[in-house]
This record gives sequence, structure tokens and C-alpha cells, in this order.
Amino acid sequence: MKSFNFLSEDSTKKPRTNGLTMVLDKGLGYETAESLMKISGDYVDYLKFGWGTTAIQEFDVVREKVEMYKSFDIKPYVGGTLFEIAFMKSKLDEFFKEASLLGFETIEISDGTINISEDEKINCIKKASNLGFNVLSEVGKKDLVEDSKLDIDSRIDLIKREKEAGSEKIILEARESGKSIGIFDDSGNPKENEVDYILKNIKKNDIIWEAPNKNQQVYFILKIGSDVNLGNISSEDIISLETLRKGLRGDTVGKV
Amino acid sequence: MKSFNFLSEDSTKKPRTNGLTMVLDKGLGYETAESLMKISGDYVDYLKFGWGTTAIQEFDVVREKVEMYKSFDIKPYVGGTLFEIAFMKSKLDEFFKEASLLGFETIEISDGTINISEDEKINCIKKASNLGFNVLSEVGKKDLVEDSKLDIDSRIDLIKREKEAGSEKIILEARESGKSIGIFDDSGNPKENEVDYILKNIKKNDIIWEAPNKNQQVYFILKIGSDVNLGNISSEDIISLETLRKGLRGDTVGKV
Amino acid sequence: MKSFNFLSEDSTKKPRTNGLTMVLDKGLGYETAESLMKISGDYVDYLKFGWGTTAIQEFDVVREKVEMYKSFDIKPYVGGTLFEIAFMKSKLDEFFKEASLLGFETIEISDGTINISEDEKINCIKKASNLGFNVLSEVGKKDLVEDSKLDIDSRIDLIKREKEAGSEKIILEARESGKSIGIFDDSGNPKENEVDYILKNIKKNDIIWEAPNKNQQVYFILKIGSDVNLGNISSEDIISLETLRKGLRGDTVGKV
Repeated sequence: MKSFNFLSEDSTKKPRTNGLTMVLDKGLGYETAESLMKISGDYVDYLKFGWGTTAIQEFDVVREKVEMYKSFDIKPYVGGTLFEIAFMKSKLDEFFKEASLLGFETIEISDGTINISEDEKINCIKKASNLGFNVLSEVGKKDLVEDSKLDIDSRIDLIKREKEAGSEKIILEARESGKSIGIFDDSGNPKENEVDYILKNIKKNDIIWEAPNKNQQVYFILKIGSDVNLGNISSEDIISLETLRKGLRGDTVGKV
Repeated sequence: MKSFNFLSEDSTKKPRTNGLTMVLDKGLGYETAESLMKISGDYVDYLKFGWGTTAIQEFDVVREKVEMYKSFDIKPYVGGTLFEIAFMKSKLDEFFKEASLLGFETIEISDGTINISEDEKINCIKKASNLGFNVLSEVGKKDLVEDSKLDIDSRIDLIKREKEAGSEKIILEARESGKSIGIFDDSGNPKENEVDYILKNIKKNDIIWEAPNKNQQVYFILKIGSDVNLGNISSEDIISLETLRKGLRGDTVGKV
Repeated sequence: MKSFNFLSEDSTKKPRTNGLTMVLDKGLGYETAESLMKISGDYVDYLKFGWGTTAIQEFDVVREKVEMYKSFDIKPYVGGTLFEIAFMKSKLDEFFKEASLLGFETIEISDGTINISEDEKINCIKKASNLGFNVLSEVGKKDLVEDSKLDIDSRIDLIKREKEAGSEKIILEARESGKSIGIFDDSGNPKENEVDYILKNIKKNDIIWEAPNKNQQVYFILKIGSDVNLGNISSEDIISLETLRKGLRGDTVGKV
């Protein structure tokens, strides 16, 4: 039983299909991560081992963290950058096999850093899906100049095609900083008209919005609802985000 | 015995009546919090479970953290936002009872998010006090626009009335960000004339200044002294703040 | 064996002579620090107990942390500010003795906060060296105004003299913030011409660049190479920095 349960509604139970939270693990120690999940694991749906961080950690260390996260009914996965490096080095088969050996059941397919043709990306989504992975795919570029070349209609086309090809959810790139990328301007403020345009064309539940900063989280919760899917949440902000969703922090009290 | 004890004066012992440090816990895991207190608990007087974070944590988890903090002679309390939600939902009796069952002996009364008339707020302070709680009350609004409507003389009146009504200390709101609120401008710099005006009208020891950023902590220590009461200190900065107080960090070496 | 080892080259083994990473510990709990080192200790060469933080921690607590870090083949040392305070209080002999009792084998000699003449600083480097310590020395002032008085040629002279006097490496000051100090402008961007001038006059391997922010780490890795020595790395960013060095994060994929 939660404390002060008469002040707040019960949480939805996992596995959830909306109101998803995807958390970024940049390299937490095992014990620290476990201590954090004991207090906040209920509110984490996806856990991303950021970019290529797993490739500099011991196999056994990663496997134990994967098991630990799964014991909290969380879906861990490897940051898309590592997939891209495997693609670039023509080592996709080894990549998928290693991910499986480590216990990952979810895979992110992205092209944030390298150039992959649309058709090739779609093929990778299908391939991962056929191998039995849950697939998340990501739309957006990590480089500001490259990203600015991608107009909003292209983004929407990509989202639709990738969903059709088998992606469970499409992640909209915002990096760890949440600035100057995708729908965020240089100050990290959302571009309202682009958000509206996306929502007009895509089912809200198909998208996970990367929203690392609190003002962005507040924005999406107030605009779209408490059950919006949000990603790249810092491990320090898991509890804060859930209080925002439930109207338990000043920014959203009485508004959700 | 402290290491290098010949380079620094001994710390004051708790319970202290000035030089208080109030730390913000946004949702630390139990083991991580305990590990931190073992190294820095001597320098923490109040520990705030931020806003409504307790309402999404298990009763037993919160009670154990409360006990753990108390074992380090720290006074834990629940962020004022949760009191405000209880007030709004007409569940104050349940709120005070639950806080007591969880082991809290200190209560924060605030009106940062909702509208409570001055008289009602004073009544709440008295009520909590009569129930045997140590009361902290907070002056200031979390919303920038609402907060800007509160002029400095009104703030001073509120501080005086709340102190008279039984508040142990009055907290001056600055939120987690320390910007655009109360005595801080949009860059987080203190408005010197307002600080001076407050100090002219209120005993310095009656106030806890929320000062989450290092430059703000340095400012208050150099202006008011090492024994200034400071709040909303990030759990990561407990040790840093104490070194600032003791002249053991560049910013205050030879100046305190 | 590392996971996904077919996507990344093996790490160099410690003790390394270049590609060094110096991490800042602002006061981590023992268990939290140990948990972090188990996952990332391979990538830490020097561990700085920041400024005077050790002087407010129990002797036994510090000694245990020193031993723990050394068990991971890391060289722990005390922030230079504490040396400066000892110098100011004419307690250098006690300072060196206490550092040794605590298990430190490396000492930082700096004059970031107080005025020490060049000759005196050189003497301190020699003294520490003669006592058997590995010496790191630091060039730069913590105060913006004081630091701006130090021109680039003076910095280079100091680096050369201190290296000759026995410093293992020379640290270039940037503080925890990385802004408005030394080679960084008010936004934390490196001044390219000053970096070039230093590199023209000093062996790159003699320097540890304090570079607390990610854009600074990316800058130095792309400009100087993956084996650049970097310092004041936040404990949260150890893994991230190593992925930047190895081309496993978007910013450096395919570029190192």
C-alpha cells in the first residue's frame, strides 16, 4: 500500500500500453540501480542502456543488470547507437545474437548517427522483429545540422512506415540534453505547431517523446495527458515524473 | 575524529538552532540514501521528501527511510505540496494522522501551489502545532506569475504572522531550480535590495533560504555568515555546502 | 570479457601513461562509490577528493575510501585547495603526514585560491616529491578576475617550470563548472587559439585538461585524440567519457 494513498489514485499496472516511461541508464552501479528500482521500479516501463555504454562493460555485469531490471517487470534495451555501429561494421547478426545472450528482449533500431536508407532501416526493423525482439525505432538525427534537414512531413512518413514494419513504438529523438533537436528549439522549448502537426497525423500512443527536462515533461503531460509516453528520463527523475503525471507536484497539481 | 582536523574547526553538534541545512530528497533509494548519510549526515538538519513523492512510495518504504534519517538525528518531513493537496481535498485530519504513523515529527505548511487565505494558513500552522508537530512554514508561490504578485512587504507580514503562530522556521520558496522566484531573478541571482529589506525586518535565524545553486549558497554565506540557514540543498551537494560554510572551498577560503 | 566486444577495441591497461581520466568525488557514500567503481573503475586513473571535502569527513571513512579506490588501481588524491589552506596556515608538514597516514600516494600542488610565489610553489612540488609522493600540479586561478590576469605565456612558463620541478602531470584549471576559466569562455567553449598555442609549446601528454562538460570532452577528443588526458570528470560521466573516447557515442562515432 502506498503512503498517503487517500491523496492519489492508484497506479496502472504493468505491462502498460500507454503512459509509458523510458529511463536512461548512463552507467549506474548494480547496487545503486537496484536500490533505485526498489523505490521507483513500478514507474519504469523501458530502461535504455544508453548508446554504446554496454560495450565497455563486462558481459556478466550487463547480464546481471538486465536480469535485475527484468525482475521489476521492466524492458531493458540497448541504445540505438550500438545497433548503428553494428550496422556500419556489418556485424548485425553478431549484434542480435549477443543482445539475446545478454537477456535483452527489446531492440532499438535507429539512424541518429549514421546514414541508413529508409528501406534498409525498415528491413532491420523487420529482421529484429522476425528474430523475436520487441522493436522500438527512433526518428531523428543526433547532429543538429543533419537533424534540421529532416522536415516534419518526412518525420511523419518515417513514423508511419516504421510502425507498419513492426515497431512497437516510435521514439522521437531529443538526446540527453533535449535541446536543438527534433521538436525542441535551442532553449529546449517544444515547437507547438510541429507537435500539433504530428498529433494530427499520428496516434498519440504510437509515440514515445524523448523529454529529458522537467519543463518538457510538464508540457507534454498538460498538452497530451498523464498517459503520454515519455523517454530519456534521467534515473534521478523517475519519481518526479510520476508525481507530475499524478498531479502531485506544483506544476501539475489540479491540472491533470 | 575528522581527517585533517588541524585545518578546520569542529562542527557544531545537533540539534543546532542556526547554520541549519535542509536537504531535498527527490526519491533516493534506501541504500543509497543511507550510504550518503553515513558520510554526510552530520551536516543535515532537515530532510524534505520533496512535494508529493511520498504518495507514490510504499508505506513501509517511507517509514523505513524516515527511521533511517532519524537515526542520524535528522528531522525528516513531507514537502508542503502534499499538505496543500490534503487541504484542497479536505483530508487534513487523515494527512496529519498518516504523517504521524509514518514517523514524521515535523510538518511543512505552505501555499505555494493553491490559494489558502492567510487566516486559514495560520489556523493550519496552529493545528499542526497543537497536534505536537514541529512546524515549518513556507512563504512564496511556485508559479512565476503568481509569485511576482506577492510584494516584499506582504512577504514580511506573512513571515511575522506565521512565526507568531508557531512556525519554528519560515522557508523562503525558491523551488528546485532557484530561478525567477522570490528573491531570485531569472538567472538565479539574489536581488540584493530585497534580501537587505528582509534582513532589516526579520531575525536572520527565523528564516531558511532555499538556495539550490552553489552561487546562491556562496552569496548567503558571505553576506549573512556561515551560520545562515539554507534549504533545498541537493543531496549531491551536502558535503560541498559544508565546505563552503567552513571556508574549505575556493569560493569562501579565507572569507568566513 | 566485455559485452559486444566485436564492436569496440580493447581498453588499454592501467597504469596508463596517456588517455588518463581524472574523476571528481564531491562526497559519494562509500557503498555508492564502490558500486560505481565495480562498473567503471577500469576507466579511472586519478580520483580527486574535491577541494577540502576530506576535512569534514571522518579519518576512518576517508582511509577506507582511499583503500577501496586503490584496490581498483586508481590513484586517489586530495584536492589542491586543502594543500593551499595548509600552506596558508603554515601546516604543510602536518598536511603531508596526514595525507600519508590516510593512504594517499599522490598530492596536488596548486595556487588556485591563494597567492603563492612561483618559487614557493616550485619548492612545494619538490618537497612533496622528495617525501615520495607522485605530484600533480595545477595552473590557473579559481577566481575569474584573478584568472584573467594570467596570460597565456605565463601559463606556459608555469607549466614548464612545474614539470621540470617534478610534477607528473600539469592540470589546467576549469573548476567544476568549466566556465570563464583558463581556456574556456563564459559559455564553456574552448578558446581555440589558446589551446593551439599551448599544444605548440607543451607536450600534449604533460597536460590534464579539466573538462567537466560533455561538449568540452568531445572537443578535446576530436582535436587531440582519444588518448587526451581529461580531468574533473563527474562521477556520473565516467562511462560516457569512455564511450566518447572509443567512438561509441553519437558525437564521436566514426571520428576517432
